[in-house]
Amino acid sequence: MLSNEDNEILCRVGQGTPMGELFRRFWLPALLSSELPAPDCAPRRLRILGENLVAFRDSEGKVGIISAYCPHKLAPLYFGRNEENGLRCVYHGWKFDTMGKCIDIPNLPSKSNVQALKDKASITAYPAREAGGMVWVYMGPSDLTPDMPGFEWLDVEPQQNHVARWLQRTNWAQGMEGEIDSSHISFLHREFGQAGWLDPVVKVTAPIPPGTTDGAPVMTIKETPYGLVYGARRNNNSGLYLWRVTQWFVPMYSMIPNGEYPRSGRAWVPVDDYNVMVFNYTYRADRPFTSEEWDYLESGPSFPPPKEEMAVELDDGYVIDTWVPLARKENDYGLDRNRQKQVNYSGIEVVTDQDRALQENMPSAFGLGPGRIVDRSREMLVPSDIPVITARRILLKMAKQLQQGIEPAAPNDGSLYRNLSLSALAPESAFDDFLAAQSQADSEAT
Amino acid sequence: MLSNEDNEILCRVGQGTPMGELFRRFWLPALLSSELPAPDCAPRRLRILGENLVAFRDSEGKVGIISAYCPHKLAPLYFGRNEENGLRCVYHGWKFDTMGKCIDIPNLPSKSNVQALKDKASITAYPAREAGGMVWVYMGPSDLTPDMPGFEWLDVEPQQNHVARWLQRTNWAQGMEGEIDSSHISFLHREFGQAGWLDPVVKVTAPIPPGTTDGAPVMTIKETPYGLVYGARRNNNSGLYLWRVTQWFVPMYSMIPNGEYPRSGRAWVPVDDYNVMVFNYTYRADRPFTSEEWDYLESGPSFPPPKEEMAVELDDGYVIDTWVPLARKENDYGLDRNRQKQVNYSGIEVVTDQDRALQENMPSAFGLGPGRIVDRSREMLVPSDIPVITARRILLKMAKQLQQGIEPAAPNDGSLYRNLSLSALAPESAFDDFLAAQSQADSEAT
Amino acid sequence: MLSNEDNEILCRVGQGTPMGELFRRFWLPALLSSELPAPDCAPRRLRILGENLVAFRDSEGKVGIISAYCPHKLAPLYFGRNEENGLRCVYHGWKFDTMGKCIDIPNLPSKSNVQALKDKASITAYPAREAGGMVWVYMGPSDLTPDMPGFEWLDVEPQQNHVARWLQRTNWAQGMEGEIDSSHISFLHREFGQAGWLDPVVKVTAPIPPGTTDGAPVMTIKETPYGLVYGARRNNNSGLYLWRVTQWFVPMYSMIPNGEYPRSGRAWVPVDDYNVMVFNYTYRADRPFTSEEWDYLESGPSFPPPKEEMAVELDDGYVIDTWVPLARKENDYGLDRNRQKQVNYSGIEVVTDQDRALQENMPSAFGLGPGRIVDRSREMLVPSDIPVITARRILLKMAKQLQQGIEPAAPNDGSLYRNLSLSALAPESAFDDFLAAQSQADSEAT
Repeated sequence: MLSNEDNEILCRVGQGTPMGELFRRFWLPALLSSELPAPDCAPRRLRILGENLVAFRDSEGKVGIISAYCPHKLAPLYFGRNEENGLRCVYHGWKFDTMGKCIDIPNLPSKSNVQALKDKASITAYPAREAGGMVWVYMGPSDLTPDMPGFEWLDVEPQQNHVARWLQRTNWAQGMEGEIDSSHISFLHREFGQAGWLDPVVKVTAPIPPGTTDGAPVMTIKETPYGLVYGARRNNNSGLYLWRVTQWFVPMYSMIPNGEYPRSGRAWVPVDDYNVMVFNYTYRADRPFTSEEWDYLESGPSFPPPKEEMAVELDDGYVIDTWVPLARKENDYGLDRNRQKQVNYSGIEVVTDQDRALQENMPSAFGLGPGRIVDRSREMLVPSDIPVITARRILLKMAKQLQQGIEPAAPNDGSLYRNLSLSALAPESAFDDFLAAQSQADSEAT
Repeated sequence: MLSNEDNEILCRVGQGTPMGELFRRFWLPALLSSELPAPDCAPRRLRILGENLVAFRDSEGKVGIISAYCPHKLAPLYFGRNEENGLRCVYHGWKFDTMGKCIDIPNLPSKSNVQALKDKASITAYPAREAGGMVWVYMGPSDLTPDMPGFEWLDVEPQQNHVARWLQRTNWAQGMEGEIDSSHISFLHREFGQAGWLDPVVKVTAPIPPGTTDGAPVMTIKETPYGLVYGARRNNNSGLYLWRVTQWFVPMYSMIPNGEYPRSGRAWVPVDDYNVMVFNYTYRADRPFTSEEWDYLESGPSFPPPKEEMAVELDDGYVIDTWVPLARKENDYGLDRNRQKQVNYSGIEVVTDQDRALQENMPSAFGLGPGRIVDRSREMLVPSDIPVITARRILLKMAKQLQQGIEPAAPNDGSLYRNLSLSALAPESAFDDFLAAQSQADSEAT
Repeated sequence: MLSNEDNEILCRVGQGTPMGELFRRFWLPALLSSELPAPDCAPRRLRILGENLVAFRDSEGKVGIISAYCPHKLAPLYFGRNEENGLRCVYHGWKFDTMGKCIDIPNLPSKSNVQALKDKASITAYPAREAGGMVWVYMGPSDLTPDMPGFEWLDVEPQQNHVARWLQRTNWAQGMEGEIDSSHISFLHREFGQAGWLDPVVKVTAPIPPGTTDGAPVMTIKETPYGLVYGARRNNNSGLYLWRVTQWFVPMYSMIPNGEYPRSGRAWVPVDDYNVMVFNYTYRADRPFTSEEWDYLESGPSFPPPKEEMAVELDDGYVIDTWVPLARKENDYGLDRNRQKQVNYSGIEVVTDQDRALQENMPSAFGLGPGRIVDRSREMLVPSDIPVITARRILLKMAKQLQQGIEPAAPNDGSLYRNLSLSALAPESAFDDFLAAQSQADSEAT
């Protein structure tokens, strides 16, 4: 349960909002590097934290993420010409570099003070970096530029890390919360004949092993400098417990518990208050994916789900370039009631589609239609929701503190993002042992 | 003409509105029994009086109409598993019976006080009954549970009563008023070569007989305990008058005048302020329909119109399971200007489509777009509209009285709904005779 | 740059708004004469200046433009029967002539005072005229009925004047401004291998001749009693200058500069605040178009662009009958990045589609989505925008004066609209010579 007031603080991300400002203290995934495949290729339309932006790769290969509009007559730069180290508006030829600097104004009569106008005509540009197959953007104050998060998947070779993104039509928090909800995998993601879901090729998700029928895990949780880690302990008939230990990193990173590689997780980057871009990574630190594995990951139906690339018109008419899952509201997410009787718990084929079907159809607060911002004032949380409750509390606290001028610490220490999740059959002490080892590793890293 | 204030009272049906509360004093058709064909079949998404609901048939065949959302994390129950006498949310397995009682919470650790939480977790459920091929729902206070309306068509055998439903994209009153507008059948529904429309197979609508060119009926009206009855008298060259005597039952039931079986009519159940579900019945008390007749009714184009089953996204994004007429706004209702010159008055093929084409495109009050809530402050009513004027007055009076604590009487006497409409060539005294006979029958019934 | 306040005055055109009232002082193109091809043909749905209207041609060939709704029950007259000199509502047969006069009410009982009701039942009708292949409408006070504009293209034979219309999804001013922006043709409309665009068949647009690489024209402007005329002077390697002299007529007429026939231009008639109907004319005063030229104009891709006829649902659900360009937002305006690299500056094929792609995606003021009313408070205008700045100033002044009771003069002198635009290689004095000649011609005409 969350008051309407806190729910609004949690969910709204525009400029000047508490959570919007908190997100603007972190590097965020913006798009995939492969979407800008070559110098001077076509630009891509983005919206991040409610701001309309265009990404392009200049002649030297550098990525720029700049305002979507030319400052002259506000023509959309997406239609621009990407050439000779700048994106040129097609209306009157004004040109901008990756820093947003106006570097040409060709429609001024010769006696004009061109340089003065160019200086005035610079547009919003956010620093962009590439790592782990993604373009990252930092949209906060330039004097507070943070560390990149030190995720292991940002350091491996390209063939070892598969990334994807797709659009979910809900507020960001609605999606993110599903990632730290250990209990639901025993229900929503259950395949009959096994206790959880297992991707048959890449084996990205550790199965809940046979002998674990327990859908009511006992939760132990610990707040950390980077967010939280929790252990979900399930009874198992082996004499040991199934422990699923999950890391969650502010402001919105998940890492699915697994005992070994591949590891997988997601970043939930707000498009605006009502849409979120899901960035998915699946990587192995030990070896490259085989071509069979790679093809499987590309085609779905593991993580990511089967999807298609398209230009999507958002509610207000702004268009973004993205991928959209094939299973969606218009086709009832491919729900098959026979599959639901015979094959799996939900009747929907793919794991992330199962989550999204529910999240995109929850009732909203603030008089909004279903799927926008779930009405957290009406929910009824239980012990298995402690990670969600804690994550909300952490985020609200950080956002409110930031309003009082207290900057968050996590953005300045990327090494905090090195920690891993875990899934194992282990004794009751496993979570304490895990925390001790992590604490030891952290202090050695410092 | 109606003031904006009264128009709003007439049309808005959400919880707490005067008309919304009045509707909540009656049993209302909710869906067709055939939509829930077997125990544990797939649930159906409904919206009634602005409330989002799910209907399901449990393992014992009993129908439940409950809140659309699980109280835990507000996941949509439509995606749920219907099994072992309850609908189970697929998110974490919480289960609800047809009374809305929470009967299982499988994701609680064993030491939790499960029973206490179950008691707290009950959700809205409205009493449901089946009669006449429909599932009925009562959404009002439980201590005021009304009588079922005593319609003859609720008592005949299934093969004697054909029912259907479809969505109209207008406020409920906009559609209902067309049913008590005797004059328009001489125009909108006129087929050239005859004065009205006649279904060639089932003969559901009594034709306006040859010799009746009079489109300006003289109206006589009488308020009744259940609504009103009016006689529309047209000149006819036989020496007799064409009398069409129409019953209208609060809050929104029509019965088309006919001299014999089959009889037909509709219930206009508000989906929300801007959409209405039309429930259509066509029955014979004298014999079952032949299979030819039945097939004809199923396929249209009598009542119901040709239609397709689909999941429809309403304005705010909520999805309902329903039928939608094939003739609709996107295809100009199949308007054919040659047909309009040669075959019938409107150029649209099917009777209810003719009405709907007009009603879905009337200009709205309250700054709303066409088709929502017609701007009754601008209309210019004439004598043939007296039944409409009277019905509005009756409804507004009942709704306003209810606000003052005066409960309506009609819900408590289902026998009032037994009266029939009539169409006949008869002398000038016919309506008085009809009223006298009805009064006699009523007093004998009491 | 324009304040939000002035931007709103410039753009909003509903009844009672300053600019809406100014538009209501002029004859405006409403639809094409060819859309009403014969007496008693099908009516057409229009919206002009935010008012919902229906156009029909009566049995004698006269065009009526009347309210979209019958006053009785507000049924849409579009579905009406057009017969015997009137449009008859199909609901109850009420009939209206081209003046909006109610001429039949067939559903009144004989003793009713039919004539009194008919008198009361007259509906809004605006005077309509036909000229130049278009139906024109005047929506202002009847005692201020203006002159028709004296455009040359209104006086030529039908085979000499090709007209078309299509819908643009922006405010009217957003489109109109592109017409008096000389600079952008050197960029947006550039075809590689030549300095501007040249239609290969009709040769409607004077090319920017070889030797003119100058995209920064020096602008000279003169306000006139009918609007403004400006000269855009470009350097040319011939020893002469390229002069493009453009006429702009209040409230929104353009005329593309050309040295000879054909001449071409557009009228930008507001549908409502967020949509504009573009009326395009292309004519020769010297001879009829050949059939090859005519077919080319009909098919696009000159002016008009390739387009399809359809019924379009506007934002609030009201439907208009119009043409819509094939290149549109849903297909990214046919943008081809290879074409943009190899063939032309924008990568979009057709001139007006190039403009529209930009204009329909500019960011809006007033919290509106892209493409509605561009946020002029954020723009950064330069010398080449002087005609736009001047036109805004003229319009705002006229609109504000009208609010103070000062009527505009231009509506009362149609001869002012006889002036022509010009494109030529000429010496520096050309614009002064042009103005002198025009002044001479004007005084001779007076």
